Parts: sequence; structure tokens; C-alpha cells
Amino acid sequence: MEYIFGQIAIAVFAITGVIAASKKVHDLFGLVVLGVITALGGGTLRDITLNHSVFWIEDFTYVWVAMASALITFLVFRFFNNTYRILLYLDALGVALFSIQAIDKSLALGCTAPVAIIMGLLTSIGGGIIRDVLSGRPNLLVNKEFYAIPILIGCVFYTTYMILIPSFVFNSVLSICIIFGLRAVSIYFELSVPAWLLIKPIHK
Amino acid sequence: MEYIFGQIAIAVFAITGVIAASKKVHDLFGLVVLGVITALGGGTLRDITLNHSVFWIEDFTYVWVAMASALITFLVFRFFNNTYRILLYLDALGVALFSIQAIDKSLALGCTAPVAIIMGLLTSIGGGIIRDVLSGRPNLLVNKEFYAIPILIGCVFYTTYMILIPSFVFNSVLSICIIFGLRAVSIYFELSVPAWLLIKPIHK
Amino acid sequence: MEYIFGQIAIAVFAITGVIAASKKVHDLFGLVVLGVITALGGGTLRDITLNHSVFWIEDFTYVWVAMASALITFLVFRFFNNTYRILLYLDALGVALFSIQAIDKSLALGCTAPVAIIMGLLTSIGGGIIRDVLSGRPNLLVNKEFYAIPILIGCVFYTTYMILIPSFVFNSVLSICIIFGLRAVSIYFELSVPAWLLIKPIHK
Repeated sequence: MEYIFGQIAIAVFAITGVIAASKKVHDLFGLVVLGVITALGGGTLRDITLNHSVFWIEDFTYVWVAMASALITFLVFRFFNNTYRILLYLDALGVALFSIQAIDKSLALGCTAPVAIIMGLLTSIGGGIIRDVLSGRPNLLVNKEFYAIPILIGCVFYTTYMILIPSFVFNSVLSICIIFGLRAVSIYFELSVPAWLLIKPIHK
Repeated sequence: MEYIFGQIAIAVFAITGVIAASKKVHDLFGLVVLGVITALGGGTLRDITLNHSVFWIEDFTYVWVAMASALITFLVFRFFNNTYRILLYLDALGVALFSIQAIDKSLALGCTAPVAIIMGLLTSIGGGIIRDVLSGRPNLLVNKEFYAIPILIGCVFYTTYMILIPSFVFNSVLSICIIFGLRAVSIYFELSVPAWLLIKPIHK
Repeated sequence: MEYIFGQIAIAVFAITGVIAASKKVHDLFGLVVLGVITALGGGTLRDITLNHSVFWIEDFTYVWVAMASALITFLVFRFFNNTYRILLYLDALGVALFSIQAIDKSLALGCTAPVAIIMGLLTSIGGGIIRDVLSGRPNLLVNKEFYAIPILIGCVFYTTYMILIPSFVFNSVLSICIIFGLRAVSIYFELSVPAWLLIKPIHK
């Protein structure tokens, strides 16, 4: 169950990675590499930070899934218009799946709740940040979009519930709905960060 | 003693991280994340490179200190003018504390003197470099400021003395004074790298 | 034999790192650090990803070789014109040596063939990508140059042969010739990625 979750999230992130990077990178190799990095980067950062063996070295299926998804996306997505919106919703699904899965893995490895929450965030946004740095796009930390806060809310919710009532199926479905729901609402209404969470720059 | 040193350095770096990143990033979440990354990034790189468990996973207090410092800075620093100078001196204190602490940790783990010196440098400048890459600012390696050389001098001095005369209190106070003093002088007189250490670009 | 290969590749990469970074960075410290990062960065990423102790911490000779090569390059390369072409051919030699050596190390550590191929790629292009990100240059993933594909072909070739017929000297010489040869041809004829491997950007 978790395994299928993981593979779907990998595929989704490889697809969004190729579409997002295609604004700056246009050749097959670069796009497939950036798609694979988007898909595997967050989990790689998580495993390295936890001093654990990297998941795709233990099970190379993840790399094949990421490569195949990136390759198919490269071949077919030019025939779609308006991919940008699809990309945003797919990405919302991917981050929801990834953060839940990373929290489960971290808790199973004996991490405390706060570490597990950080690993949920790192896994779900790490790959996209590496992709943006490598392809020269502004990354999500410098955007004012309502992006990481829904993930954070979902991660705190899921971790709390898993410690109180360890029922994987119920909690994970509920938490994925929370993260995906909040992201979908903020995409649909084009929410950015509310004004009271903003600071005006002092130096120019 | 070393523990208090470490926590103070974390707080100082989280503060400077938020102030530095606030030129490019203006929302609460992004600034707190970049403050925490500035504070914990260098030590994380050190522990990962040494194949050692990451310090803030073993003791989460560091993350709370970094988060609290970043949050308070976000809330109050808009009321201060001329933060830029304060930032530079605080940063000088932070790098001095961090490099000494990293050398101690590396020597305690059985590293040789040259490895310990590199870890001192990596810990004290790593977090700021990650912050600059993520927030799209030019990092210290591309600046001509007299920044890393004072740290390098202090690291070499401290490591040599700790191997010759292992007296932590005396050496650490002296080395922190050296690094902070050299940095403070170069901030005050706005020193950049001397001309004989420069190369003129050959290709444009 | 492999050890000499490794040290030569380190020296070559430190030289190319300094020359490449000198477009953006002009002081001694920054250039030497970027040269050393170019030389050691790829292998460091490989060892960290494999959860193995980092090679230059085990044997500090690599760092001295990288530092000395970077320093000498800093001192002498201003007297050469047309360094750009030399840089490209040196780099082609460096990536050939690095990828072969990384595959050998990975196979010796018990990695499967696909993991070894990825490690070959990561080791040979990782250092240069970190250098480009830190010095604010466009990295090779966003260029359309025929760069990574020759390395990939050589890595697949070498790994396949090492598993079928484990004869280090013959296979490594042949594979280095393949990678260097393909890169040299693409430098000489200024090949970029062929049109059928390109995608036109959909969103601007």
C-alpha cells in the first residue's frame, strides 16, 4: 500500500518535474535528468540527513519509474495545452503522497515527531527546490504562494494522529485529503500568502 | 560550555539568515525556513560529510532555538534601522563560534588536523552559502570581501594550538577573538581582497 | 593504477574548475575553493549517496592535489590565451577518468550495474554542476551541448563489459577512449543536441 503510494508519487513528481523544467531546458537528457531529480531528490535528501541508505539504491524500481514517467512526459506533453494547471494539481497530489510516506518512514526508523514532520516537508519540497536551483527558476521559498503551509499543516496533523491513533489507512487518506484540498483551494483561488504573514523589505 | 556556544551560534545565524534573506523573500514561512537553513545548514553539511548522524536529529533543541530566533527576528527587525551593520558584526561572531565548535567536534571524532580545519570552514560558511543559493543572492565565494580568509586563519590557529596545547577555554577564547577581530576590522574599514590576490578575467 | 587515474582526474578538474569559475570569481580564495569543489564535489556526492565514508577524508592527498593544482592554475593561467579550448579537452579527459573510476568503486562496493552507471554520471558531472550553481553560471543541464550523453554511453559500455569480461586495463582504456573521443568530436565540430532530442517550450 505504502509502496504503491510511493511509486505513484515518484511518477507524478517526474511528470511535474519535466513540465516545470521545460520552461528553461529543452533537450531530452536534461529534462529526463531534471524529472528524475525532482522525483528522487527530496527522498534522497531525507535518507542522507537520516544517515540511512538511499531508497533508490536499495530498490532501483523507483529510478525506472521516474525515468519512464519523465520520458513519456517528454514525448507526449507537447500535444497538451494548458498543462500548467494540470501540473499544479498533479503536484498537489504528489506532495500529499510524499509527505505522508516520508513521515511513516521516519517514524518507523524511530524519529521523534518533530523530526518526522521536518522529513515530511523536506521530502515533499526538496526535489522541486533542487530542480529549480539547477534549472535557474525561482524556487518556492522565494515565491509568496500558499504552498508549504498546507503541507506543514497536513504533516503536523498526520504525525499527531499517527502517534495518538496509529491507523495508517484512515489517517493517511484523511491527511492526503487535507493537504491536497488546501493546495487545490489555493490553486483554484490563486491564493498567495496573506498580508499579515508578509514583511516589507527594509533594504533595497 | 561548548553546548552553550553552539546554541548561541545557532541563534545568531538564524537572526542573520532572516535579515539577509529578507532582501529577496518576504513571507513568514520562507524567511523562517531560510533562517533555520542558515543556522543548521553548515553543521548538517559537516555531519553528512563526516558520515555522522546529523546534530539536530540527535538533539532537536537546536531546531527550536533556530525557529524561535528566526520567528522573533521576523517579528521585530522591521522596527530597527541600519540592521545591515549589526548583521555583519553578528555574523562575524557566529562564524567565530561555529568554526571553533566544528573543529572541536571533528577532532573529537578522530579527524586529522586538515580535515578539522575544512570542517570549521564548511560549518561556518556552508549555511550562508545554501541560503544565498536558495534566495538567489550572490554568495560569498563570488564576492571579493575579506570574509573566508579570517576564518581560515582562525581555524588553522585554533587547530594547531589544540593539537599542541589542548586547553579548550584559553584557545577557544583566543581563536574567537582572532576571527571576530579580523572580521570586525575588515567590516569597519570595508576591506576587500587585496589586489595581489585578484586575477583579471580573461574571457568575458 | 586506479589511484593514479583518480589523482590525475582530480588535478584536471581542479584546473578546469578554476578556469571556468574565473569568468565570475576573481580572487584567490574563491577560485581555489571553487577549483577544489569542482575536483572533489562529484566524488563527495557519490560517497554520501552510497552512505560510504567520503574519499578525501580517508585520504587527504586528494585535497592537497586539488589545492595545489588550483593554486598553480590561479598563478599561471593568466599567461595563456585561448584557454577555453584547452579547458574543454582537459574536461573531456577528466570526465572520462572520473566516470570509469566511480563505476569501479561502486561495483567494488557491491552496487548493481544501473546504480554504478548513475554513480559514474554523478561523479563526473556533479562537481561541475555544484561549481556552476555556486558561481552563478548556467550549468550543463540547461545547455544544449552534447555533453552528458557521451559520458552515459561510455558508462553503460564500461559497466556492461566489466560485468561480462572483468579486465580492468583493457576495458578502462577502451571506455576512456570512447568518452574522450565522443566529447572531443563534439567539441571540435561544436555539436549540440540533435533536433529530434529537443522540445519546443510550450509556456514562455
